[in-house]
Amino acid sequence: MSVTAPEGFEAAGVACGIKPSGASDLAVVATADRSPVTAAGVFTSNLACAAPVQISRRHLGDGTAAAVVLSSGNANAATGEQGRRDARRMCELAASGLGIVPEDVLVCSTGLIGIPMPMAALEEGVPKAVVALAGGPEAGADAAEAIMTTDTVVKQAVATTTISDGTTITVGGMAKGAAMLAPSMATMLAVLTTDAAVASDVLDEALTHAVDQTFNALVVDACTSTNDTVVVLASGAAGNVRIDDGGTDLAALTDALKSVCDQLATAMAADAEGATKLVTLDVIGAGNDDDARRAARKVASSQLVQCSLYGCDPYWGRVLSELGTSGAQLEPEKVEIAYNGITVCRDGIAAAHDESALATAMAERDIHLTCDLHVGTGKATMRFTDLTHAYIDENTGTS
Amino acid sequence: MSVTAPEGFEAAGVACGIKPSGASDLAVVATADRSPVTAAGVFTSNLACAAPVQISRRHLGDGTAAAVVLSSGNANAATGEQGRRDARRMCELAASGLGIVPEDVLVCSTGLIGIPMPMAALEEGVPKAVVALAGGPEAGADAAEAIMTTDTVVKQAVATTTISDGTTITVGGMAKGAAMLAPSMATMLAVLTTDAAVASDVLDEALTHAVDQTFNALVVDACTSTNDTVVVLASGAAGNVRIDDGGTDLAALTDALKSVCDQLATAMAADAEGATKLVTLDVIGAGNDDDARRAARKVASSQLVQCSLYGCDPYWGRVLSELGTSGAQLEPEKVEIAYNGITVCRDGIAAAHDESALATAMAERDIHLTCDLHVGTGKATMRFTDLTHAYIDENTGTS
Repeated sequence: MSVTAPEGFEAAGVACGIKPSGASDLAVVATADRSPVTAAGVFTSNLACAAPVQISRRHLGDGTAAAVVLSSGNANAATGEQGRRDARRMCELAASGLGIVPEDVLVCSTGLIGIPMPMAALEEGVPKAVVALAGGPEAGADAAEAIMTTDTVVKQAVATTTISDGTTITVGGMAKGAAMLAPSMATMLAVLTTDAAVASDVLDEALTHAVDQTFNALVVDACTSTNDTVVVLASGAAGNVRIDDGGTDLAALTDALKSVCDQLATAMAADAEGATKLVTLDVIGAGNDDDARRAARKVASSQLVQCSLYGCDPYWGRVLSELGTSGAQLEPEKVEIAYNGITVCRDGIAAAHDESALATAMAERDIHLTCDLHVGTGKATMRFTDLTHAYIDENTGTS
Repeated sequence: MSVTAPEGFEAAGVACGIKPSGASDLAVVATADRSPVTAAGVFTSNLACAAPVQISRRHLGDGTAAAVVLSSGNANAATGEQGRRDARRMCELAASGLGIVPEDVLVCSTGLIGIPMPMAALEEGVPKAVVALAGGPEAGADAAEAIMTTDTVVKQAVATTTISDGTTITVGGMAKGAAMLAPSMATMLAVLTTDAAVASDVLDEALTHAVDQTFNALVVDACTSTNDTVVVLASGAAGNVRIDDGGTDLAALTDALKSVCDQLATAMAADAEGATKLVTLDVIGAGNDDDARRAARKVASSQLVQCSLYGCDPYWGRVLSELGTSGAQLEPEKVEIAYNGITVCRDGIAAAHDESALATAMAERDIHLTCDLHVGTGKATMRFTDLTHAYIDENTGTS
């Protein structure tokens, strides 16, 4: 189940010819009654952001949207004014088919940078996708398939929660990416839907928090794409008392969004063709959570740490070295480092351990790396993958 | 010619058994008359810095030194109090042989992190190296050889300049590294010598500036080692009027130091076994030099850019994307990007170019990548290498 799991949404995925392979490459998600609903988005911080990001940001200015059109195979990034015209045109094409205004349509693209959009394909494809819109799991899966680039499996997720008025609300989502797969198409895109009735600013807060704890805690090559986008539309079809402010309902909605984002992020990491390891890194005992996050990101982004893991080598010296350059408060001689629960460094120096148990642990695909800085109570969790020959193979060409 | 090129210095390199291969692994550089002279150092910014860095910083507190003892094969990093004792002991052993105080000896180590120093080898080795001290090019080369880890060639350099009083001063130097070779022994170490008479603070300023423009402008994997050290000793044997303040003599000394550092940095880059490309990146037209440096470092550190280059792929979209996340002031639609003089991006979008000329250019080992941000006059130059299968092979184990 995907974006069509919550009440009030339809979806479609079609092949329109952007991908030379003829694979499905165009998706539309829309409200079932075509009316604009509360919406929020989180976009890449890259200053060189793609045209669809620029247009979607603008169209989300009023906190509402009725549809999202998504294409894969071309990022429509570094395409200048023509790129913006093309992204707007994609919105117009969808709006025209849906009988709504273009400003209520969001647009996302993923693929190669610097190549003009093949608009002839989209002129035909978008109306076709709009006609194909339908409810139900199959339509949701079609949409999720259409946004894949080098993903090998469709990524979709769903979560439910019951809020204070007794209503059960549902969150659904689909995603493609991420960078570990083929950063030449590095973008991660996700569209979430929910049937909750919620105020725009509350939805925005919930989404930002959910993304921060999930997609933003996934590191592959420390590159921030031009196209990263996560959007959510809230139909209100659940009929709950509108969530208008903070408190338990905000927390429940945030948790449901977070659950869906986490499932999608996990699926991205698990689909990392290039990777042989999936590492969960816990930095604990940091001066504060920001410091923990900083330290975790530095370790997770380190080519040297990533290479060690590919070699099944518990080379904690590199981890300590990265902690030392992370900018986080650090007393090196308090640091404790463990791989899958086996402590290899204590008080900043080598700790005696069972070598054979460690070798067995390092051969696992899932590695749990823990760094206790022992200076405070700050903590952060981050997921990352190893740096492999296959990563290089996938990233040495444009295709 | 190396550290023995300037008047007033001796050097030696011996095998003491740190390296299992039996290769040369211990060097000493000392003033010819064993007297302390003006000295300065630049050390890693890593908070988890190695014991020898901690000890050398302390011994340089008075701005003088008479000798440097250097070992390769073990970094003496993440070794705690025992590591500091061992580093101090290395100074004592050298001092004892030289008839000076331990505080006048600096110490540098390079190699694996987290393993106690094999002090038995050093107890024997350091006195042996002191006895072997001699002037002349051969002794300088012996010392340069003893600090190699996975370096395939000895790295030494010399430069001369004439200052305002008519004296010709000489700068010599040796180095090992850098990270691109085998970051499990990632450290870059360099010892420079000069026969100039110069005040301590002036020498410090000249060295900092020289290192900044050379070693600090070389990016491989964006990892800052626990052991990075560059030290310089100034014997005063040239007999010049002591350089006591800024002005033309400081500039001349800085240029000579910079020339030696640049030769050594170039040799490091050229010795990058893992690398198939040596890229010189010029960022120009930035808001200011700091911004240019920031942008250059981000592009040079990018796994995706490095992978593209390994694939001979002029994928400028990744370069633009990195510029967009560098933190530098950027107007994406002003950016111009060229590979070996062939402009592939202008005004932030694809620029028509001769495809076949570009393919020929990308096949070269030396790539000149230029990014003109067109927002100001700031500029920076950085050298980097590509990310290759061989890099991964060299970094997947501890050896």
